[in-house]
Amino acid sequence: MPPTGTRRHDPHRRDRIIEAAVAVISEAGPAGLTHRAAAARADVPLGSTTYHFTDLDELLDAAARTVAERNVQRLRDWASALPDDADLSEELATFIVVLATKHRQTSALAYELYGGALRRPALRAASTTWDAMLTEVFESRVDTITAKALTALFDGLLYQALVSPRKPRRADVEPVLRRLLG
Amino acid sequence: MPPTGTRRHDPHRRDRIIEAAVAVISEAGPAGLTHRAAAARADVPLGSTTYHFTDLDELLDAAARTVAERNVQRLRDWASALPDDADLSEELATFIVVLATKHRQTSALAYELYGGALRRPALRAASTTWDAMLTEVFESRVDTITAKALTALFDGLLYQALVSPRKPRRADVEPVLRRLLG
Repeated sequence: MPPTGTRRHDPHRRDRIIEAAVAVISEAGPAGLTHRAAAARADVPLGSTTYHFTDLDELLDAAARTVAERNVQRLRDWASALPDDADLSEELATFIVVLATKHRQTSALAYELYGGALRRPALRAASTTWDAMLTEVFESRVDTITAKALTALFDGLLYQALVSPRKPRRADVEPVLRRLLG
Repeated sequence: MPPTGTRRHDPHRRDRIIEAAVAVISEAGPAGLTHRAAAARADVPLGSTTYHFTDLDELLDAAARTVAERNVQRLRDWASALPDDADLSEELATFIVVLATKHRQTSALAYELYGGALRRPALRAASTTWDAMLTEVFESRVDTITAKALTALFDGLLYQALVSPRKPRRADVEPVLRRLLG
């Protein structure tokens, strides 16, 4: 945690640096992130980014967690707005299409950072946290094993929708979800 | 297709360039691929790579399809060696663990290229072909909708195993597959 003096002058600087890092990654990919690029984007001195984030891995991890948290919050909001008797396959199919179209940019960023862990061990914890958070949301609707299956199925279907050259269609996704959810 | 003269002298040059591109991507990621890097790796003149692959997108697509085909062939071999009365959940859980450990490098490369389509439209066709090929393999065992669900579930579970800091365990994966496959 930064010393009190620094915080008093610019209490949100750490968050602003993270937001800047997210913006840099969104434009240039995880490989494009440097302390320098984040500092320029956040309009803070370079020393300020290295003060808050000792190395690039720390900044990358913070950015990935912020993106994951933001996307999971969308899923939480969706889940809590669902009526108790909702048809989960139908509702989730609709939501996956919304995530892959209207929210395409943030969804793609989340999965780019998720996959970035293949090459960058610093991102692994954030990727695993992403799946754990999804499972927790789904557990409000189904049992734990089904929630784990639904997490992997959701990851797979949304990723497919994001990489496919075709426009995603609810009618393609819904029967696939129903095969798991009944 | 290259003129006959070229083929007679070095009939496998195109394949060697693709192999070199795969090696470059494996080391440096999709962003590291250039005609120059592939030419140096394949030990051919730069002009030879631009002759066979007009632009980088063509070379990237060819490399992605080669990696996908190689990985799917592994899955086909696995499926055709299964006895008719095999417990699919158990066998596939074992296989996912093998893919994420013994074959970690090629599996990670396949998913890195899959996810690369988020930022590089040239990779989209190869990613979609990957899923279509998986579904075709699974259709030898289950109905079409279940095969589509199993494709997304397999993608999700293997990707999870590849990005997780924990060692993948069959006992974690098998009950999740069984929830879909019964």
